[in-house]
Amino acid sequence: MIIEKLYNRVEEKGCVCVGLDTAIDYIPDQIKNKYQDIDEVVFQFNKRIIDATYDIVSTYKLQIAYYEALGIKGLIAYSKTLKYLKANDLISIGDIKRGDIATTAIMYKRAHFEGDFEADFITLNPYMGFDSIMPYLDNIANGDKGVFVLLRTSNPGAKDIEYLKCEDGKEIYYHVGDKLYELSNQYLSSCGYSPIGAVVGGTHIDEAIEIRNRYENMFFLIPGYGAQGAKGNDVNLYLKNGNGGIVNSSRGIITAHKGKEDEYENFNQHIRKAVFDMREDIGFERR
Amino acid sequence: MIIEKLYNRVEEKGCVCVGLDTAIDYIPDQIKNKYQDIDEVVFQFNKRIIDATYDIVSTYKLQIAYYEALGIKGLIAYSKTLKYLKANDLISIGDIKRGDIATTAIMYKRAHFEGDFEADFITLNPYMGFDSIMPYLDNIANGDKGVFVLLRTSNPGAKDIEYLKCEDGKEIYYHVGDKLYELSNQYLSSCGYSPIGAVVGGTHIDEAIEIRNRYENMFFLIPGYGAQGAKGNDVNLYLKNGNGGIVNSSRGIITAHKGKEDEYENFNQHIRKAVFDMREDIGFERR
Repeated sequence: MIIEKLYNRVEEKGCVCVGLDTAIDYIPDQIKNKYQDIDEVVFQFNKRIIDATYDIVSTYKLQIAYYEALGIKGLIAYSKTLKYLKANDLISIGDIKRGDIATTAIMYKRAHFEGDFEADFITLNPYMGFDSIMPYLDNIANGDKGVFVLLRTSNPGAKDIEYLKCEDGKEIYYHVGDKLYELSNQYLSSCGYSPIGAVVGGTHIDEAIEIRNRYENMFFLIPGYGAQGAKGNDVNLYLKNGNGGIVNSSRGIITAHKGKEDEYENFNQHIRKAVFDMREDIGFERR
Repeated sequence: MIIEKLYNRVEEKGCVCVGLDTAIDYIPDQIKNKYQDIDEVVFQFNKRIIDATYDIVSTYKLQIAYYEALGIKGLIAYSKTLKYLKANDLISIGDIKRGDIATTAIMYKRAHFEGDFEADFITLNPYMGFDSIMPYLDNIANGDKGVFVLLRTSNPGAKDIEYLKCEDGKEIYYHVGDKLYELSNQYLSSCGYSPIGAVVGGTHIDEAIEIRNRYENMFFLIPGYGAQGAKGNDVNLYLKNGNGGIVNSSRGIITAHKGKEDEYENFNQHIRKAVFDMREDIGFERR
């Protein structure tokens, strides 16, 4: 069961999820100069990040937009990175936020749960409703894959839809969450969590405790740490004894070498220090 | 201005939008046997559809999920098809339904308004709010690109979020629509429409008239015709004198040859007949 594997990884290595949102200007010149093709440049950078961190983080999340922006070669790098993670028994999250229905959703499932772009987890957008989630359930029932559905994000625009209050006094994100939780509970594993998780922004201190209590068996993917403003104490409110969620940091980790004189020579150390600092901030070492 | 070009195309050639949601089993064996690579097989099929229809339809919409499902090679076919449309001065819509914010949205913009996957229009998902639309506005202000934002779809799950009524008595889709309309009106072109359009499902007879009147300057992308249940009279309610919207049909057109004895020999005729029947049903010939 992929959710149990995730739970165990967080127990062993902490809840840090490394966001491989790789932009070309993060990559040291030495790597750029060594490889001809852009897909290999991006992959080799990702590989170095992975090699430097695999023993101290739980998961890797690839924001597919960064790869799509580089066209076909970008998606080759995306595919190579996912395959490298799989070959090394590391957990991958395809941050694709797809949201579509019927045969289209089945095509997205094929795309991201098999073949070139296979990931262990993907993110989904619920706007079109729960028939945009149902097509993924057979993989979830098998136990081999999981999803994180967008619930409550922390960007300013979240008030436009997610935070709107319905006639019954419940915000949209609770409508999504309550229904998702019902579904999620049908697939509980022995670790106490379900492979149907949710994306919750890291900076909602007021609601974090309520969300954690209301959806106690739901595993959270928590973006927004670091560059986007969430602190260790904030994201901790979404965790239960340091588990039940993973906290994503992208730029905070994968650009930790930038601006350092020895960015290439001591690349691993810079990256690892960023992860250790984050684990310290979230309290992993103190558990 | 791309929206004027679209408006004129609909005037000249009618509102049919061909959905190039190409699945392998739609493709005649003769094409499959002629080309080695799957990307070329898919592209050659698409090319034949385009060559058979370009004088009688307004636009082509590519559902990217079908291409992602085929991995890297599928996306090569997606790219080839978009480039072929562009080279022939035909209007393309990338049905990508992306919805993300900040630098991620900028990456999606780069991916789908430039380079390998460049399309004239793309579809967007508004769940995260209007900061998932803002990053595309510079291309819209330039006049060279347009977007269709998911508003009200006609799948059963639409009731889970889109149809929910808010405290103020307004459904979510009207919340999205009213705000979108305000934005859309800031970019009106001389044809009376804006390059910020909306996706509205074709089977909402009751609301169609209200939606058309409420958002009178908004151009609609209307899916759901044919295989998904919408009829000519239904979709007509979203149009103004046959313009102001495009009506997508995928399987109804691109599988019109299937099961015919002469599916390969008279491919063009089968496909063209499906388009003519649809134009007749929507009333283009009677305008």
